Parts: sequence; C-alpha cells; structure tokens
Amino acid sequence: MMHTEENEQVEETNMAAWLLGIKNLQIQPYHLPPLGPNDVKVQIKALGICGSDVHHFKNMRVANFIVKKPMVIGHECAGIIKAIGSNVKSLAVGDRVALEPGISCQTCNFCKNGTYNLCRKMKFFGSPPTNGSLANQVVHPANLVFKLPDNVSLEEGAMCEPLSVGVHACRRADVNPDTKVLIFGAGPIGLVTMLAARAFGAPRIVIADVDHYRLSIAKDLGADDTVQVSTNIQDVGEEVLKIHKVMGESVDISFDCVGFDKTMSTALTATRAGGKVCLVGLGQSQMTIPLVAAAAREVDVIGIFRYRNTWPLCIELLRTGKIDVKPLITHRYKFTQEDVDKAFETSAKGGNAIKVMFNL
Amino acid sequence: MMHTEENEQVEETNMAAWLLGIKNLQIQPYHLPPLGPNDVKVQIKALGICGSDVHHFKNMRVANFIVKKPMVIGHECAGIIKAIGSNVKSLAVGDRVALEPGISCQTCNFCKNGTYNLCRKMKFFGSPPTNGSLANQVVHPANLVFKLPDNVSLEEGAMCEPLSVGVHACRRADVNPDTKVLIFGAGPIGLVTMLAARAFGAPRIVIADVDHYRLSIAKDLGADDTVQVSTNIQDVGEEVLKIHKVMGESVDISFDCVGFDKTMSTALTATRAGGKVCLVGLGQSQMTIPLVAAAAREVDVIGIFRYRNTWPLCIELLRTGKIDVKPLITHRYKFTQEDVDKAFETSAKGGNAIKVMFNL
Amino acid sequence: MMHTEENEQVEETNMAAWLLGIKNLQIQPYHLPPLGPNDVKVQIKALGICGSDVHHFKNMRVANFIVKKPMVIGHECAGIIKAIGSNVKSLAVGDRVALEPGISCQTCNFCKNGTYNLCRKMKFFGSPPTNGSLANQVVHPANLVFKLPDNVSLEEGAMCEPLSVGVHACRRADVNPDTKVLIFGAGPIGLVTMLAARAFGAPRIVIADVDHYRLSIAKDLGADDTVQVSTNIQDVGEEVLKIHKVMGESVDISFDCVGFDKTMSTALTATRAGGKVCLVGLGQSQMTIPLVAAAAREVDVIGIFRYRNTWPLCIELLRTGKIDVKPLITHRYKFTQEDVDKAFETSAKGGNAIKVMFNL
Amino acid sequence: MMHTEENEQVEETNMAAWLLGIKNLQIQPYHLPPLGPNDVKVQIKALGICGSDVHHFKNMRVANFIVKKPMVIGHECAGIIKAIGSNVKSLAVGDRVALEPGISCQTCNFCKNGTYNLCRKMKFFGSPPTNGSLANQVVHPANLVFKLPDNVSLEEGAMCEPLSVGVHACRRADVNPDTKVLIFGAGPIGLVTMLAARAFGAPRIVIADVDHYRLSIAKDLGADDTVQVSTNIQDVGEEVLKIHKVMGESVDISFDCVGFDKTMSTALTATRAGGKVCLVGLGQSQMTIPLVAAAAREVDVIGIFRYRNTWPLCIELLRTGKIDVKPLITHRYKFTQEDVDKAFETSAKGGNAIKVMFNL
Repeated sequence: MMHTEENEQVEETNMAAWLLGIKNLQIQPYHLPPLGPNDVKVQIKALGICGSDVHHFKNMRVANFIVKKPMVIGHECAGIIKAIGSNVKSLAVGDRVALEPGISCQTCNFCKNGTYNLCRKMKFFGSPPTNGSLANQVVHPANLVFKLPDNVSLEEGAMCEPLSVGVHACRRADVNPDTKVLIFGAGPIGLVTMLAARAFGAPRIVIADVDHYRLSIAKDLGADDTVQVSTNIQDVGEEVLKIHKVMGESVDISFDCVGFDKTMSTALTATRAGGKVCLVGLGQSQMTIPLVAAAAREVDVIGIFRYRNTWPLCIELLRTGKIDVKPLITHRYKFTQEDVDKAFETSAKGGNAIKVMFNL
Repeated sequence: MMHTEENEQVEETNMAAWLLGIKNLQIQPYHLPPLGPNDVKVQIKALGICGSDVHHFKNMRVANFIVKKPMVIGHECAGIIKAIGSNVKSLAVGDRVALEPGISCQTCNFCKNGTYNLCRKMKFFGSPPTNGSLANQVVHPANLVFKLPDNVSLEEGAMCEPLSVGVHACRRADVNPDTKVLIFGAGPIGLVTMLAARAFGAPRIVIADVDHYRLSIAKDLGADDTVQVSTNIQDVGEEVLKIHKVMGESVDISFDCVGFDKTMSTALTATRAGGKVCLVGLGQSQMTIPLVAAAAREVDVIGIFRYRNTWPLCIELLRTGKIDVKPLITHRYKFTQEDVDKAFETSAKGGNAIKVMFNL
Repeated sequence: MMHTEENEQVEETNMAAWLLGIKNLQIQPYHLPPLGPNDVKVQIKALGICGSDVHHFKNMRVANFIVKKPMVIGHECAGIIKAIGSNVKSLAVGDRVALEPGISCQTCNFCKNGTYNLCRKMKFFGSPPTNGSLANQVVHPANLVFKLPDNVSLEEGAMCEPLSVGVHACRRADVNPDTKVLIFGAGPIGLVTMLAARAFGAPRIVIADVDHYRLSIAKDLGADDTVQVSTNIQDVGEEVLKIHKVMGESVDISFDCVGFDKTMSTALTATRAGGKVCLVGLGQSQMTIPLVAAAAREVDVIGIFRYRNTWPLCIELLRTGKIDVKPLITHRYKFTQEDVDKAFETSAKGGNAIKVMFNL
Repeated sequence: MMHTEENEQVEETNMAAWLLGIKNLQIQPYHLPPLGPNDVKVQIKALGICGSDVHHFKNMRVANFIVKKPMVIGHECAGIIKAIGSNVKSLAVGDRVALEPGISCQTCNFCKNGTYNLCRKMKFFGSPPTNGSLANQVVHPANLVFKLPDNVSLEEGAMCEPLSVGVHACRRADVNPDTKVLIFGAGPIGLVTMLAARAFGAPRIVIADVDHYRLSIAKDLGADDTVQVSTNIQDVGEEVLKIHKVMGESVDISFDCVGFDKTMSTALTATRAGGKVCLVGLGQSQMTIPLVAAAAREVDVIGIFRYRNTWPLCIELLRTGKIDVKPLITHRYKFTQEDVDKAFETSAKGGNAIKVMFNL
C-alpha cells in the first residue's frame, strides 16, 4: 500500500514541458510510471535551466544524444514528497527534497566500482530518450532523493545539480588548501566550480573570462582576482604572463569550464609543472593544443562527466553556509506556457542571466 | 683523502665525445671537475644512444634546450668506480654501477616533495649546457650511482636509463594486474614501457606501430598481440575497432610513445571510460585531438617527464629476471672516432636498430 | 519465461548441508526462492570449506554473527548454470561459473561509493541468517556470477573466493614491484595473499609461521624465503632481526594473516618507516601492541573485510596462469552425509589440510 | 662575502638556554657554527615551548632520544635574518622569517621520495644531540627558512611548527569537506589539528577531552561540539554512543592526539566503516585496543611523525586568516634566566597553559 497525503484525494492531471521540436516546448499532460516499492513521487517546486537543456531546446541534441521523440525537458530540481513506495523508510510524505537526476544500473563494473556516473545504462532526466523533470510531479528512486534541512530552500535544492558539477570537478582534481586555482569561464559552471573550490580550501582563486560583467559577478561571489581574456589564440603567451602576475604564484590546478583551443592552450601553459588541468566545459570536439609541452612538465588533464555521490555534500555545504548559491539565481519564472517560452528565451540569450529558475 | 685503485698511478688523459656542431662529434680530452666529498669517479664501460642524443646530434637542440657551446654527449651509462669522495660509505672502488644522469637541486619544492624530475635547476648528462657521459670517466654524486648485482651486466646497467622511462610511466599511470594496456610505438621507449607494464602485472598488452618489423620484435619480447596501424588520421575509427577486437576487452591504460595527432586520437578514443592515456612520446608540439569526447568519458591524460627514484627498482627487475632488456641491444660499437661516427649514423637511421650501445 | 535445459524436466529435490547445532551438519532438502528476472540458478559443482565455516560449525557463531536457526553452510563455490532469469543477457544455461557470495543493497553510501563490501545490509552465503551454498543448487543474482574460461576448472572457480581475500588485501595495501612483502601465517589466507602479492609484482616475499610443514608448502608455492617463528611475545625483537636478515632489505608491507599480539607486534616492528601493515587475520579481539612506536614511524595499519570487485581479476589471474591455486587443494570430498562430516572434521583439525574441497 | 646589517659591527656574545641536567636549564654562551654559503643567520625573536621540550627538561629524554651532553633546547621559532650565505638569493637581511627545525640528509630514499620527515639522519633543533634554537641567534639552511608576510607576526611564525603537526595529520588523513572529524585531546596538538581540519574543509568537528576547561577553549576556537570523557576504559561503549549522538552522523576521521588505550579504543570504535583513525599523540608504548574489530570494518590507522613541506601552507593559512593561532598563546616570557625557569615550570604544570611563548 502506498502512503499519500490525505488532501491528495483528487489527483489533478500531471503536466510537463515537452520538447516537441526545435525551440518548441509545450506544456502537456504527462502520465507518470507507477510508483515502485523503492520509489517516491515528488511535487516539483523549483527547477533550474541548464546549458544542456538549452542545447536540446535549440538543436534537439547534445553531442550524440539526439531527441527523436517528444521528451519532457529539465533535470535541476527539488520539490516535496507526495507519496512513498512500500519499502521506503528514509523519506516521508511532506519532506522537502532535492533530486539527483541520473538512475544508474547498479550492476555494471562502473556502478560496482563507485563510478556510476560512467554507467552506460544511465537513465538521466531530460537526456534523450529519458523524460526530464520540468513537470508538476515525477516518480524517482528514493535513494536518489535527498531531504533538505530547514535552512536550505527548494531553489537551493535545485541548485545542488549544477553545484554537483563543481564539487565533482574539485574532488577529481583534488582541490585543497595546497592548491591555487585558475578557472576559465565565469558562467554558471565556472561559478559553481569557484564556489566549490573555495569550500575545498583553495587559498587563491583567479577566474578568467572574455566578459567583463561575468567577471564582476565572479568577483562579487568571492574570486580573489579576475583576468579578462580575448578569444584570440595569439594572446595565449601574454595572457599566461598576466595570469601568473595576478596569481602571484604558480597555478596548481586549472579548470577549463569553456573547452576551446584558446582556453585549453592557456590552461595547459599557465599550470605549473606537476599540476593539473581539469576539462569541464565541452566546447570544441577537435582541439588544437600544446599538449606535449604540458605533458613534458607532467601537467595532467583530468576529464569530468557529471558527478557521483555529490548531493549529501552539496546539501551540507549549503546548510553550513560554506557555499551560497542564491546570488547565482538571476531570473525566476512560473510554470506556464508563456513563462516557459520566456525562460528558455532568456536562458538561450545568455547575457546577464546566470541561472534561470522555475518556481512551480 | 681520496681512495683510488693502486694501479691508477699514471692517470691517462680522459677522453670524451664532444658535440661541436651539427653531426660533428669529436673525441677530445675532457678535464673532469674535482671529486667532491660526496662524489664518485666512474670509468664508463657501457653507454647507450638515446633518441634525444640523436636529436642533439642532428639539430644541436631538443625543444628549448639548445647546444650553444661544445658539449659532451650521452647519458645512458654504467661503469666501474675508480675513486670515491671522503664522505662516501655506500660504494667502493671497483664496484660495478649504473648512473642516474640528473642532478637536482635538493632544496626546491619539487625536490622536497619527491618530484625532483621536475626540478628547474636539474643538471642532466648531455642536456645543454651540462656535459654528458660518453667519456672514459665522469664524476657524479654517489647518491645517483647504484651498485649492480653480480648477475646484472654493465650493458644492462646502462639500460636502466631507458627502462626508467617505462617504469616511471607505469607508476604514474598505475599499471597493475587490473589494467589492460595498449601501447603506441614499438621503438625503444614503447618496448621498455611494454616490459615495465608486464612487470607491473598488466594481464594483457597490445602494441601498435606502423612498422611490421618493430611489431614482430614487440611480439618476441612478450606483447600479447600487435596491431599494425597507418599514419592516416582517417583510419582512427577503424583502427579503434581493430584494437578493441584484438584486446578482447576494454583498454584501461594507453601509452602513446609516439605523440602525434594520429596516435593520440586513437589512444583517446580506444581507452575505456574512466581509463588513462599516458603521453610519453613527444612528437608534435601542437596536437589536434578529440580531447573533449575523451574528457567527457573521464579519460585522463597523464604526462611524463623522465623519471624519479627508478634505479633501485630497475636493477631489482633485472636481477630477478622479471625484465630482460638484453634483446633490445641490437648494435654495439667501440669508443673510437670511427665507431662513434658509425654508431650515431646507425642510430639516426633507425631501421632495424633498437638500442645502439657503446662498449668503452 | 524462464530458460532451462531440456533435460531438467524432472526436477530432483534440492539438497543442502544444514547447520543445525554445534558440530551438527545434516543434508536435508532446501527449497529455493523463485528465480527473479535478474537471477540465475546454478548447479553447484565445487565448494571449498573456509575457516569461517569451521567457526560456525564449531561455535554456531563468528564474532557477532550468531546462527540462531538452521542455516545452509558454505560460500566458496562454482557450478553450472541451470536456468536464467528473463533479463539476464550475459550468461547462458550450461555456462561454467564462479559465484561471488555477497549480495549488497546497491543503494547505501557504501554501495554507491564502490565499497560495497562494507554494506550493512549485505546478504552473504552462509553468514547468518543468510543460507549458504553447500547445496545442489542455488539461486543468485546474475551480476555476482562470473563465467569461467575453458582452461579454469570449477574447483579453481571455487578458489576465487579465498583468492579474493588475498587480492583485496594486495589492492588495499597497494602491493607492486616496489614493495617487498612479509606475510605472517602460511595457512590458506596467508598462501593466497602470497600468490596475489606475487601477481601484483612483489619482488621479494618472506613468509613466517610457527609450523615447519606449512612453511615448506609456502616455499613450494613460491615464497622467496621463510622464517619459523614462536608464539612467545618475548621473541619479537630477535625475530625481527631474523626477518630483516632474510629479507635482505626493508619490509615495505606486512600482512598479518593471523591477528595476534605476537604477529602484529612483530609486523609493526619489522615494517620500515612509511610502510604498511595489513591486518587480515582476525585472531584476538583485544590486542596489546607497540602501536605508538609504529605510528611514529608512519607505519599505517590497513584493515580488510572480505573483498570487492575481485572475481574478474581472480579469473584473469587463473586464466593466464599467473596464479595457480590447485596445489592449495589438499583434500576432496563428495556431497554425502558421511563425507560432509569427514570434510568438516578434516578442516577443523587443521594439520596438513590447506583447502578441503567438495565435488558435488 | 657575507652580507650583514651595518649596525652589527659589534657582535654581542650569543646566548642560549642549555639543558644541563634534569630541570636544569642555564642561559650560557653558544658559539655558532660558521655561516655556510646556503645558510642564513637568524636573530630569534619568538619561540614556543613544545611538549617534547618539557619532556627533555623533566627526563633528559624522549623515547629513545637521550640527552647525553649539554644541549640547547627549543625548536618552535621565528626571527629576523641577520646575515645570509653567499649563495642565498631568496632571503635578505632584515626579513622576518619562520624556521622549519629539521635538516634532512637530502640523499636517502626517504628524502628523494618526498618523505624527508622519516630521514634517519635528520638533525632537528633540540632533539639530542642537535642543539635547539632557544638562543639569541642560530644558523640554519636557507631552504628551511620562510619569509613571513607583513600581516603575520613573529609569534605566529613560531606557531607554524605546532600547526605543522596538525596540517601534516590532516594531509595524511585526507581531511576534506566530505569528512566529519573527531579529535581526542584539547591540548595544543589537538587544538592545532582542529584548526587545520577546519581549514581543510571538515564540515563538522567534535573534540573530546577529560578536562572541561580545555573543552571550553576548543569550543571558543571553533569546535562544533565537545564531549567530556573519562579515563575509565569501561566507559568506551557509552562514550561512543555519546559521540555519535553529538556528531549527528558517522565519524569519518578520528585524530587521537592523546595516544592511550582509552582514547584509541574509543576512536577505533567510534569511527565508521571505511574511515580512518590518525594516531598523533604518543602516550603509551604498549596499547591494548580492539584493533581486529576496527580492521574488520576497514578502519585504517594512520601514523604521524612530525611533518613535511608544511611551512608554506601554514604561512598561507595564517596570512589569509583561515587559521588564527593567536588565542593559543596563553603565556609570554622573556629570555632571562628567571623567565626561562618560570616558563618551563608553567609549561610543565599544564593547567591553563596552552602555548607558552618566549619573546627574545
């Protein structure tokens, strides 16, 4: 028997934002799968738009993931539990929760080894062909649903998803009080990486971007210093000098949250011998870079795909105030057809928008 | 007081192979620095020619290291101790020894942290402006001179240097019984990497090269299988399939001992999610590669510069017979002007020559 | 629909060895649970007796795990697949397989992090209250059932279980060609640890035991040297000297496969500064040891509980012949009431028995 | 030629605190060794008393280190450079500096591997037979002398030494935002470990001690919570429950900064499966502890000896204000015979004294 709130007697039709074609999102009914014994049903209350959502919106694809049939979009979300499966003990109806969007197979070598983010059978909210979570309600496995403390809002809960990328990158690169950090890109991912790096103890963080406004936000959010860079590959040498001057000392770890020839070349050159460059942004499929010179200084390149086991830490970092993601939320929309259109337009335009959030 | 052998009363003039210009090596007198209290004097008996020696010979430079004045060449060497400094306790006159060629500063952060191979003040045999060891005698710090067991020959002692590159690469990439290994390049460095990977427990090693003869040598030396590849970048996809088929299972670690677009692209694509590509060969200064796709599968790229703390392990691997480097020595020359010319010519030509060795 | 072999039309009653009381094992019918979609049914063909089985047999408990109701005993096993669940793709009826005995929850933090051996909800063959596998047939999740290559026998398949303990210990302690290894205890676990350490590249392995016969077996199986030790704690100092002499050099990693004051004190004292002692044997609940002196030399103590993700590696090590476990099997019995009694008696007595194996 | 300050024309006699016998410290002339080319001469301005100094003072020994002839005491120090050797480029006369007290051999395997704290030839200030630094002036290698930023005082510079123990312990145990920390002992070492753990990102730190006053200091310095414990071994079980309750969640890493049966037993029992216990305090030479139960939950025990490569990080943590050590300094004395006697008396008495500091 399934436990539900009393006032849920009359179940309204569950609505979701379906991606039907390029730049064509429609709010339409979404019939949920049945609630399994280890699942919970969550009323989504906050959902942020991710760069990959915008990619899907604009191109019906991200890399090799192609939207071939109508798909519910969205994956950065939090909400309130409406029902729990018969085996679920750790959560209760009414709990405020954040959702980890990817369901891994639990039995392949990646899953058994703790690297479940690399599972080839992953079903991930809003990554085709799996439906996403920009919906009134979703059903999700309880072990991927994390209770929020009282002092963490639902919007902050939704921000656990992008923050997880920064946390995973900092874990993989082993950011700690001994590592001075350089970040390329002051967009949402660059900024959450900066916040995570600070929480991991990085004593000095410099952030580089082409955009002055974004750099000013980074400064407000706690960057020790910023460097405005060009998109011209000829400027690498000069910009490395500028970065070294601003950093004061050597760069131990660089995060390239952009992922182009220019950023990666600068990162590889600026990072000290024995340091690391962590490639987070997935800009260019073929990159032309001075890899040999970097490798010959034992600069390692660390790759990042999503995250693993990050929600508990993200929630703890938000609870203790070590990280404040609220300033990243620059725009808020409702879950109406009009607002969905506007929200994706805003997000696609970039500009002053950092994180665009739905309040459902 | 310095301890010397009795029969060294009449010291002959010490001769060395001086690099005077492009393809101009001359055996001329070499006046050694005085023997310090922590130094030993070694009569060189075996010295192998390295690819970097050939680069210096042909171009008077390797990367940014330029030969600006006459320099003694050579650094892969072993010999017999002729004299020891007053503080030296661990070695005695007459000991058969292998020499680690690089003298680090011992006081910078790299040295203190155990990554002395990255020391910026390194003085390395035959790397300009430091004189090398293709000489009758050299003076070297005792802590970089390692006694050979009775069953390890002086030629094998000299082979500790190239073998060290393979050992360091296997340590950095963490080769072990859980890691199936793919190697690009069946030249000297590819082959020592293969031998080291085997000693580190790699259960399956596949080696790829354009040259059939080299692959046949690799097979003889213990490769589980080989794949002949082209230099055409268009073939990457097809060759990855071939490699996967031959490997039987996923590639956990790839060593690129060549370092070109083609080899690196194949390595990045063939290696499994969560695996590593170790870049050992320093072929192309600017590389165009599908780095983002690899990073998005969390394939890390590990850089290699020389080695650190490898001599004791190399000697142990030779002593116990876990590694046999003797088959790599394909040509032998004497330390005469005529033979020096021939030896470098042979080495520069490549072809069937794997390791060219001087017997002094 | 479940796939079964045609000749399985008439299903015989499944029998198992039930532990009913102290030293009271009875072969009685065992009604299997239904075959789930992700399960396989295996005809057990080989099963080894483990020290913990003997503990259960003699005491109806191991540590805090108490046998409170009749339980099928046994967990080191291999067999042939008789049926597969509807989702199972990786295995087929007739496959020869080895079974990993523990079913973890897959959703707790330990499971998600890849340390599923620490899962608190583990259901482990023959660990109360979970039934074991000394039975004609068992049902088990397909992801814990591993196909054996043609050249690996079912007995060797059953040996993957004890071998896994050695492999896990070597992984946790990071045995490699740089680590000289000392092992206390030449019983089954000491011996599999020795075999694993060799496969992981340990260049020198010395094994210590009180029993001359066991040491001679260890020598036959490949120990470089052996040291006969006493049970007298007064002898620690002297025995450390003896060990150092026999080892020739410093001990990098010690495995204490016994777990008493004496062995642990000797291990802590004999291991070099910066080395590790891995505690595998669980002898004494309260240990009196010179831990401070060891800690002040940065000797770490590594704990071991069962294993994780070891079957593929064990099978590969057996397939390639890097490890030969066959000499460990000293006694063989049939699956009859008489033989079950004899087999446990033999195993409990110790003496010349290393591994006692059932052929079912 | 040696560079000195102009006003140093008339060199006064250098005085130092000589340990002549049990509780017998005398200020007497100390003739310094000559300034080598890589050395600096430092006017000591601040020096803290360490527990090991008090041990020497009271017993003329610490463990196997015995004071056999008069020795200058003290090693936690900072001062001002008075002269620099001819090769020294990184420091100048007048620089305010902190001193790392141990001079390692730079050529043994420990030194080459970056674990120089384990060097057997270490010469360490105030560890017999090496003279310490409670003196007007000392001569020390420049690579062990670190310039202080303007906003870090000389007293704080002297505190880098005890802080280094905490930093090294946190590095070895890998404290980070994922690790909840339990500390036994709220004395100087427990407190610096707490400050370091906070800087390394530990989200929750609970500290346990027998002394209410010390716990209140720990609370003031930033402990999230405290637990008052007894010295009675019978209380372990109950106190573990109390600790778990106060921690709220599992203990990932415990630091035993005391080192007795009671503290270590509690630490081993309270730490979660897969966690670590770091043994920092060197209380009891023979310890009786439930090591097997801990090892069977894969709780590792990490040993600590002094520190390595910590000064730059300590200075950076002080400079950025991430750590404030000033509240630890509870008593201050001058460098007079009367004050030296009083200072050691105060330090030996314990009580309210955390760190006793000389201002020279």
